[in-house]
Amino acid sequence: MIKIILSGCNGKMGKVITNLVEDFPDLSISAGIDKKDEKSAFPVFANISECNVEGDVILDFSRPDSLDSLLQYGKKHNIGIIFCTTGYSEVQVKKIQEASKSIPIFRSANMSIGINVINKVLKDVSALLYKNFDIEIIEKHHNQKVDAPSGTALLLADTIKDCIPEKVDYVNGREGIRKRVHNEIGIHAVRGGTIVGEHEVIFAGQGETIEIKHTAISREVFAVGALHACEFMYKREKGFYSMENVIDGK
Amino acid sequence: MIKIILSGCNGKMGKVITNLVEDFPDLSISAGIDKKDEKSAFPVFANISECNVEGDVILDFSRPDSLDSLLQYGKKHNIGIIFCTTGYSEVQVKKIQEASKSIPIFRSANMSIGINVINKVLKDVSALLYKNFDIEIIEKHHNQKVDAPSGTALLLADTIKDCIPEKVDYVNGREGIRKRVHNEIGIHAVRGGTIVGEHEVIFAGQGETIEIKHTAISREVFAVGALHACEFMYKREKGFYSMENVIDGK
Amino acid sequence: MIKIILSGCNGKMGKVITNLVEDFPDLSISAGIDKKDEKSAFPVFANISECNVEGDVILDFSRPDSLDSLLQYGKKHNIGIIFCTTGYSEVQVKKIQEASKSIPIFRSANMSIGINVINKVLKDVSALLYKNFDIEIIEKHHNQKVDAPSGTALLLADTIKDCIPEKVDYVNGREGIRKRVHNEIGIHAVRGGTIVGEHEVIFAGQGETIEIKHTAISREVFAVGALHACEFMYKREKGFYSMENVIDGK
Amino acid sequence: MIKIILSGCNGKMGKVITNLVEDFPDLSISAGIDKKDEKSAFPVFANISECNVEGDVILDFSRPDSLDSLLQYGKKHNIGIIFCTTGYSEVQVKKIQEASKSIPIFRSANMSIGINVINKVLKDVSALLYKNFDIEIIEKHHNQKVDAPSGTALLLADTIKDCIPEKVDYVNGREGIRKRVHNEIGIHAVRGGTIVGEHEVIFAGQGETIEIKHTAISREVFAVGALHACEFMYKREKGFYSMENVIDGK
Repeated sequence: MIKIILSGCNGKMGKVITNLVEDFPDLSISAGIDKKDEKSAFPVFANISECNVEGDVILDFSRPDSLDSLLQYGKKHNIGIIFCTTGYSEVQVKKIQEASKSIPIFRSANMSIGINVINKVLKDVSALLYKNFDIEIIEKHHNQKVDAPSGTALLLADTIKDCIPEKVDYVNGREGIRKRVHNEIGIHAVRGGTIVGEHEVIFAGQGETIEIKHTAISREVFAVGALHACEFMYKREKGFYSMENVIDGK
Repeated sequence: MIKIILSGCNGKMGKVITNLVEDFPDLSISAGIDKKDEKSAFPVFANISECNVEGDVILDFSRPDSLDSLLQYGKKHNIGIIFCTTGYSEVQVKKIQEASKSIPIFRSANMSIGINVINKVLKDVSALLYKNFDIEIIEKHHNQKVDAPSGTALLLADTIKDCIPEKVDYVNGREGIRKRVHNEIGIHAVRGGTIVGEHEVIFAGQGETIEIKHTAISREVFAVGALHACEFMYKREKGFYSMENVIDGK
Repeated sequence: MIKIILSGCNGKMGKVITNLVEDFPDLSISAGIDKKDEKSAFPVFANISECNVEGDVILDFSRPDSLDSLLQYGKKHNIGIIFCTTGYSEVQVKKIQEASKSIPIFRSANMSIGINVINKVLKDVSALLYKNFDIEIIEKHHNQKVDAPSGTALLLADTIKDCIPEKVDYVNGREGIRKRVHNEIGIHAVRGGTIVGEHEVIFAGQGETIEIKHTAISREVFAVGALHACEFMYKREKGFYSMENVIDGK
Repeated sequence: MIKIILSGCNGKMGKVITNLVEDFPDLSISAGIDKKDEKSAFPVFANISECNVEGDVILDFSRPDSLDSLLQYGKKHNIGIIFCTTGYSEVQVKKIQEASKSIPIFRSANMSIGINVINKVLKDVSALLYKNFDIEIIEKHHNQKVDAPSGTALLLADTIKDCIPEKVDYVNGREGIRKRVHNEIGIHAVRGGTIVGEHEVIFAGQGETIEIKHTAISREVFAVGALHACEFMYKREKGFYSMENVIDGK
């Protein structure tokens, strides 16, 4: 049984983790860290420095200002840290990278297993098809999202771009009279209702198309990814790891 | 058995019609009109004025310059004309409309049964949902298409717009930082490979989406629509008809 | 402002309603009914007979055994009741129908606005297309669902069937050597992961297809439907109403 | 310029090849073989034994009974043969395999580039996801197809099955009361209209799904695959090759 110290246990994602961990028979939460005190199935400490319960990994869904105490604890007990907190300063990002020289550190641009699998697959498919197929991306999100295209759409587009030896341009929507150029990737940002998140890459060739699509059903998907990362990081060597390592199992 | 005089019988669409008519047990081609002379299962005349074979309707897939002779023949024999030729001048369009005062005339912006059914359905759905649902359109076409969005996408968007009592704006693709406004319709033009034509209208609400999608599998679809129009126009009263009438059966 | 008495306010759906009602500016909860006592923004009573706060409609997400007290209260104060509870006995269903002779009563097979809109649209589309198009249904649900096809898929199939003057058979999946018969509706039950619920009706014709698809993003969708029903039932005449009335606005 | 001897040049697929070859700047047809004599841009011989024009590869879309003469010619001139003819007897299949010991031979279960790319991708994705994702396949074809599921759906299912260390069962459609078992693959055969061919593999996990879909737009897709095979087989060493080799480029 892998024992998790859950930092930010009384936040939104912390509670999702607490619910989901029951579906993972090899995982349990041994302690929580949170300034907010709510009754809980495990002991909760205001700061990890006060934590007197043993853990095998630290899973962090808290805030950037808890970084130093987490790194200190991780180094002291030589256990890995899975960072799912966002909003770090550049200085903090460097601290995290630096820490990976002494303990195992996990951080990833996208926590969904599915998006990372698709991102991996796109490398193969793009290399095989880019010469004879046109590539387009459609992403769909809820009507409160302010940026277009989504960060994940750009992540996927960049992955494809890196597989194509020629210069590639992104075209965000089309309007007016102009024929498609082969080495462009059309990116289309659909917004509406409460759509959680869909990303679809289309390879359109002569007489056939291939579509590779990811649909996030709920935000739970990031918690699932985080728990798989906990399994992966258990007793791992020092170093810097991401979801790509989790998927590859090494 | 309804006897069709097929104008433009040796052109591309004329040949598709000749093949497809066998699937319609109530239809037959009694004569063809074409300047090109190829061997054929029915008599072919260079000009309809020379045609000495009886017909019940005229189906026209020729060129704008045959308009006058077609109208003259239709009036003389009091039979309906289904115009599927494109590229008429404004003067010619007026002649066609004028002719509908004496004989039955058919002309339609889109010859596909499916697109016309969807266009009809959108009136109901838009009126029911526009208050609480965001509306977006995705259309996909081959990489040789020069205009975006497609004429059919705009036809569908205009139909929706007409059902909404408030001002509606079209947004052709999205880029940068800006939150969706409720009364906009996002239109997304995907281009790639040899895609024949897809149109999808998305209604995205709170906790649910409705998608209504049309896919053209081949250009044959326009010929099928034209043959259904022939059936509909047989022994019809004088007047102006479109695919909407064919669908409604009146 | 329409005041709702929320029966079952401390259950799962009751809490979803309490959250969502804030998005409806014309709705508020004036009182809750629940045996469980939790702190709440409105007064909560163990039984509606004890409720001394005024309400305009009763929204019920409780259990069948509260039926009698709800009907009694509704009749006494002459206000409408929206029944979203499931599992009534036949005797109870009759009581509900009987009550509609004296007060406005709402009950519906499916509480989603979207499914009901699609169900309505299918009547038009099926009548227009059944002769020349083949009809198939695909539904997708999570891997814990035990019945196939889903009740909603059968609801949609029955709606289509009623529009077709000939005998129609349902075919649940296909295997082996046998050509499709025109008057059959193929129904396909996909099961996997945590898919909330998708229903897609395909009309496949000569050279074109139409797809009409509903996706439930979360169970919230039933709460949204219930709140729209509350708006609709406010000051309504006695009688029996369903989601179809809500959609038609009469 | 690679010179193709096109066996079966006046058949349906032969004509598609003749049209498409113009899109491949490195390919040309130097001679055709066909019993039917039609006027053509290249010399046509009734039997390949009479062919006195040089070729670099033989592309065969004829009938099984031309096998012996093709093999004889290929061996005599030491050039590769791309077999796209179907319906060979077991004895003939062995002859083809035997011939690959002396000349380069190409034969493939599915000639579409896209299906073969998907088949390759499925190996990676299935190995990564099978533990935590449920796998389902939907295939769609026209209403004249007599067998279900399609051969290609079974090809994809078998590929997935081979990546899963546990026993896997195929379930062709679902009906009645029964919960999904993890190690089953649901296969759903949709039939309707003139759909050319769609194959979709769904990986449904906790909070997310991945869909990988192939759509054939026209039968042209098999001709495109055959012409890519011609490019690949030019000056190839003796041996047996399939579309998988074409995709991998080795």
